[in-house]
Amino acid sequence: MDRYSNARVAIVGATGAVGTTMLSILEERRFPLSDLRLLASSRSAGRVVDTNWGSVEVEDLETADPSDVDIALFSAGGSRSLEYAPHFASAGATVIDNSSAFRRDDTVPLVVAQVNDEAIRSNEGIVANPNCTTMVLMMAAGPLHDAAGLKTMFATSYQSVSGSGRTGITQLTSEIDFFDEDRESLVSGGWEEPKGDLYARPIGYNVLPLAGPLSDAGYTEEEWKLVHESHKILGRQEIAIEPTCVRVPVMVGHGIATSMWFDRRVDLDEAVAVLGSAPGMQLWDDTRVPTPLDSAGIDDILVGRLRETIGFPGGISLFAIGDNLRKGAALNAVQLAELLLA
Amino acid sequence: MDRYSNARVAIVGATGAVGTTMLSILEERRFPLSDLRLLASSRSAGRVVDTNWGSVEVEDLETADPSDVDIALFSAGGSRSLEYAPHFASAGATVIDNSSAFRRDDTVPLVVAQVNDEAIRSNEGIVANPNCTTMVLMMAAGPLHDAAGLKTMFATSYQSVSGSGRTGITQLTSEIDFFDEDRESLVSGGWEEPKGDLYARPIGYNVLPLAGPLSDAGYTEEEWKLVHESHKILGRQEIAIEPTCVRVPVMVGHGIATSMWFDRRVDLDEAVAVLGSAPGMQLWDDTRVPTPLDSAGIDDILVGRLRETIGFPGGISLFAIGDNLRKGAALNAVQLAELLLA
Repeated sequence: MDRYSNARVAIVGATGAVGTTMLSILEERRFPLSDLRLLASSRSAGRVVDTNWGSVEVEDLETADPSDVDIALFSAGGSRSLEYAPHFASAGATVIDNSSAFRRDDTVPLVVAQVNDEAIRSNEGIVANPNCTTMVLMMAAGPLHDAAGLKTMFATSYQSVSGSGRTGITQLTSEIDFFDEDRESLVSGGWEEPKGDLYARPIGYNVLPLAGPLSDAGYTEEEWKLVHESHKILGRQEIAIEPTCVRVPVMVGHGIATSMWFDRRVDLDEAVAVLGSAPGMQLWDDTRVPTPLDSAGIDDILVGRLRETIGFPGGISLFAIGDNLRKGAALNAVQLAELLLA
Repeated sequence: MDRYSNARVAIVGATGAVGTTMLSILEERRFPLSDLRLLASSRSAGRVVDTNWGSVEVEDLETADPSDVDIALFSAGGSRSLEYAPHFASAGATVIDNSSAFRRDDTVPLVVAQVNDEAIRSNEGIVANPNCTTMVLMMAAGPLHDAAGLKTMFATSYQSVSGSGRTGITQLTSEIDFFDEDRESLVSGGWEEPKGDLYARPIGYNVLPLAGPLSDAGYTEEEWKLVHESHKILGRQEIAIEPTCVRVPVMVGHGIATSMWFDRRVDLDEAVAVLGSAPGMQLWDDTRVPTPLDSAGIDDILVGRLRETIGFPGGISLFAIGDNLRKGAALNAVQLAELLLA
């Protein structure tokens, strides 16, 4: 792997919700880049974007030259990653891919910055950025796993609509506007079905206990990602994980209620000590309750409602929240790029 | 206990969210009552309510005569129940109390209609209506417990604002209106704090991982209710229960994600057979996803996402939803009144 002190960076999928956040974060962190390219589908090509490094015209991914790029940040969907990421890698770039396309590939490291940084060193041109829900959860589970060895994890999510990209935000706000015409029907029943087929059911003033398409054994792809990616990131296949992924009418910020048990008992004092000193995290005590709104636009994961389990003693329950566009996607990708520079 | 074929009924807290739903449900079910009295705080006294049994003037609870009532449906808060329910019981009524005041009293049965009906026979003048979240969960857990003996239950809730009464609905809609002035700040951060102190944090476009006040060991009163009430309703103190209660920006309909393990393995076929024939419930297969909006205004509990557990095999995971004002409160109270008539 090459090391870059002043990298030539490309963002692929530069006009999407995650892509634009990638650009903001590169700017915020004054990423040491010597050249910036923005690529997207032909629909967005030609648009000019003002950046801290000057105006950049968006290139058409299909016809763009993949050479002369050191780091390519991909967030353009799984099929585009499968098609184009290998081209960029062959042409010399290290690809940091935000899609699920390569996450389970044994030759591709799956890395949460500040949790399993070392894994990035074994990359062969492609590094995978984990799923947004898994990412938030791993920020809390990782330090506790390092301390005591994670054995069992229940994870139940509260995922915001921006996890589905810009269209998720548009769908939610249009449904809120639609339902606001007849709020009484939301209480008494008899509401009319809003338009849109992004989700299987309405999301405005609602909760959808299905995030992503159904897959094997009655679990969704999102739920299986949580299982497989946690195993890979923590390096322990035998962790028993029971996932439930649910979409909620929140713009930005994925929450996860989790209960965890370890190789040995972990009490509250130890959990406070471990999570209170974990990087990239704010541990809020019970005088303050962290919420998704608090996480929107910030880099840190928020952890609250920390407590010892009561069902089976010896474990820890908590609620973890993170901005799914930032740490859940774009920030982690940029942090991985920084690891490549280091 | 007296049996009544044509009962004299009083609703205490008649003008609240649950009280008005109690009246609607008595009307819908053509409850055989010979006299209807409506009681509330002095603030609402004097108001005249049109009912299927004629116009009824709301009486002031403080000065009302508790005699000549067969069944008193209480939903006026715990302190009023503690003060007034014993008066009505002494004067000859059977009180069905929707507050938490008597739920853990050993002399007061705690009854989910269609789950543990027989328990009502031992009442000594007061019957307790369970907590709304517990109620919904018990409708799904009860039949499986009867079939296989519940040992372990994880329950993570998605509770609507109407669980806090009418003020919850007002708080949510006013916050939605407030945030709609600057939706962009919900995505990027920097939003202004809305007014209102009903909840610890904003609920509009947000998720609040705290429902009800904090209590012992870092768990909320709501979470402890779920533990203690489930034990009492199912008649098994040793069930290991790990609860997390969360408020979501939904008007009506409490959802609960749960994973359950039993004295023996329960497979999907058995769970489908048990829940598919359980009373008061609609089991939706994976071609349809039930949501809180679907539950608003209907009597049945909706169960979906039914699947065998993958973390520890042998158990069942599912998502249960119910109208918290109806089955979660008013409907169950009326069903208990019907049991008293039977």
